[in-house]
Amino acid sequence: MTRWPLPEPMALALAQAEKAVAAGEVPIGAVVFKDGRVIAAAHNAPRILRDPTAHAEVLAIRAAAQALGNERLDGCELWVTLEPCAMCAGAIVHARIARVYYGAADPKGGAVEHGARVFEQDQCLHRPEVYPGIGEAQAADLLRGFFRERR
Amino acid sequence: MTRWPLPEPMALALAQAEKAVAAGEVPIGAVVFKDGRVIAAAHNAPRILRDPTAHAEVLAIRAAAQALGNERLDGCELWVTLEPCAMCAGAIVHARIARVYYGAADPKGGAVEHGARVFEQDQCLHRPEVYPGIGEAQAADLLRGFFRERR
Repeated sequence: MTRWPLPEPMALALAQAEKAVAAGEVPIGAVVFKDGRVIAAAHNAPRILRDPTAHAEVLAIRAAAQALGNERLDGCELWVTLEPCAMCAGAIVHARIARVYYGAADPKGGAVEHGARVFEQDQCLHRPEVYPGIGEAQAADLLRGFFRERR
Repeated sequence: MTRWPLPEPMALALAQAEKAVAAGEVPIGAVVFKDGRVIAAAHNAPRILRDPTAHAEVLAIRAAAQALGNERLDGCELWVTLEPCAMCAGAIVHARIARVYYGAADPKGGAVEHGARVFEQDQCLHRPEVYPGIGEAQAADLLRGFFRERR
């Protein structure tokens, strides 16, 4: 089977997820990308940082807002290896992220195409475009490998 | 009409909301409380901090996790003046907050009894006890006053 090469921001998000493994954190990575440029990149780090909100998406969004000097990330893309949870989907709305690209779907914790379906609520003030499944196999492999070793 | 005095943590959360007004931020305050002790208190501050995730609840939860040295806030209560949004409800789940007390309901942005109803999802890993309506009138008055002056 021929695979197309992954788009650069998803390759970088996967590299972040690999860094999470090395740090003993669940391997999820995220990148904020704008006009062909990486604004921020982060991996899941709640244990290291002792911060229950320190998911890859939240850390990348917070760092991008600092870098751009604005709490609204208009025109920015978020690339993340796993379907965002309710907290991260809410953060994406508040940040006004224009487009969300994610790798693997997450029936257990995702809140985009599962559960709370945050972007589909009538009250949702900002709906990003959503592109799932990019880098799905690699993202899922990293997670499976991580949890297999911990059992 | 006789009003019962507000429980101390909600009075403190309202005091935080008043501090938000002075800072030009939407008046919402939150307190993390455990065993009769305030662990952390914060107000809404996305503009000042240039951080779209800087809702009162997220800031109070992050500060409490730092103070307790643990990303899980087992046995902690969160007192907040407004019904939490999807992002904050998700953070409450990740932090394993035991009980949530909130003032005013928020049909436009709340995700506890409205919209995404995060705690009611089958996939929700941790369901806090929820006590709405404590300090509701005071919390709603602060918000109404704030938005009236901005129009």
